[in-house]
Amino acid sequence: MPFVNIKVTNEGVTKEQKAQLIKGVTDLLQNVLNKDPQTTFVVIDEVDLENWGIAGMPTDEYRKLKSS
Amino acid sequence: MPFVNIKVTNEGVTKEQKAQLIKGVTDLLQNVLNKDPQTTFVVIDEVDLENWGIAGMPTDEYRKLKSS
Amino acid sequence: MPFVNIKVTNEGVTKEQKAQLIKGVTDLLQNVLNKDPQTTFVVIDEVDLENWGIAGMPTDEYRKLKSS
Amino acid sequence: MPFVNIKVTNEGVTKEQKAQLIKGVTDLLQNVLNKDPQTTFVVIDEVDLENWGIAGMPTDEYRKLKSS
Amino acid sequence: MPFVNIKVTNEGVTKEQKAQLIKGVTDLLQNVLNKDPQTTFVVIDEVDLENWGIAGMPTDEYRKLKSS
Amino acid sequence: MPFVNIKVTNEGVTKEQKAQLIKGVTDLLQNVLNKDPQTTFVVIDEVDLENWGIAGMPTDEYRKLKSS
Repeated sequence: MPFVNIKVTNEGVTKEQKAQLIKGVTDLLQNVLNKDPQTTFVVIDEVDLENWGIAGMPTDEYRKLKSS
Repeated sequence: MPFVNIKVTNEGVTKEQKAQLIKGVTDLLQNVLNKDPQTTFVVIDEVDLENWGIAGMPTDEYRKLKSS
Repeated sequence: MPFVNIKVTNEGVTKEQKAQLIKGVTDLLQNVLNKDPQTTFVVIDEVDLENWGIAGMPTDEYRKLKSS
Repeated sequence: MPFVNIKVTNEGVTKEQKAQLIKGVTDLLQNVLNKDPQTTFVVIDEVDLENWGIAGMPTDEYRKLKSS
Repeated sequence: MPFVNIKVTNEGVTKEQKAQLIKGVTDLLQNVLNKDPQTTFVVIDEVDLENWGIAGMPTDEYRKLKSS
Repeated sequence: MPFVNIKVTNEGVTKEQKAQLIKGVTDLLQNVLNKDPQTTFVVIDEVDLENWGIAGMPTDEYRKLKSS
């Protein structure tokens, strides 16, 4: 009965992509650990860019720096 | 000083129901483990149906399948 | 299909007390939100005292201060 | 490669304050544990007052009680 | 820069299986959302059976009931 | 009443370093958001190297690759 929490930045992830993530993770747990999909939960959190930090700064600032 | 995180699907949980969950969990921790309510935190996360997966699919799809 | 995570300090919580917490939280979610116990997960984390901080210090230090 | 999750009540935290939290936590992990900022993630969750419980009640109720 | 937390019961997951989970989830996020593996973190938590509840009881009790 | 969860790899973090992390994060939240230390919780999780993945592989493998 695994529980998986996926946190990604909030940038227009579509309903279809979410369904693919849910399916993919559930299959993976069944294949690797023989876990029953019926008791596998997946929760996706979408985090606003200004709430996600990397390298000591918010993600949008980080990206500007990387691409400059 | 317990910390409790409750994740439920986002389907119109009322303010009163949230207060009942908070009260119930806090009482439980006091009764079972003698924890001080003053330092018991409860955080409720409401998760959109398309962000919650079970049985390899989003919750709304899963429910349709179960009820069909 | 709720998911509940309970974090408490690691101080000899017995197997029976854990069972009471699991039962109590599951009942609460059924009573307040009509959630199906079959798809209610509860995960208990026991956290060592030196890994839990309150008021800017580890819990054991905090307790000494409070009781002195 | 630390991962830090900060949960605070949702009360108008500004973008600048979030940047200060991200910077401060990342610096702290570099200073205390010599962690590389490039692989330090910080995620800030803003939790509505009615979803955060303390002392067995939602935060807004708790504050009224404290200030009364 | 996704962060994924996988919680499974603590039942002898091997180092190789953990590596497969990490690889599988990272590939999935690259394929579905084009996320850079260099900034994809995966953390696996192994939870003791008595600390994981389902259907209102600890997992070991639940399994006995299901198989009886 | 913030709650902060710090996840780091399990590599001999000392009790003193943990105290510094707790103190540092609590001070930060007081300075930036005026949060009361009395109701600021910090929980540190130490994660085994084989349970932490980055770039699609466990941390120890990743480090060998980086240093080779």
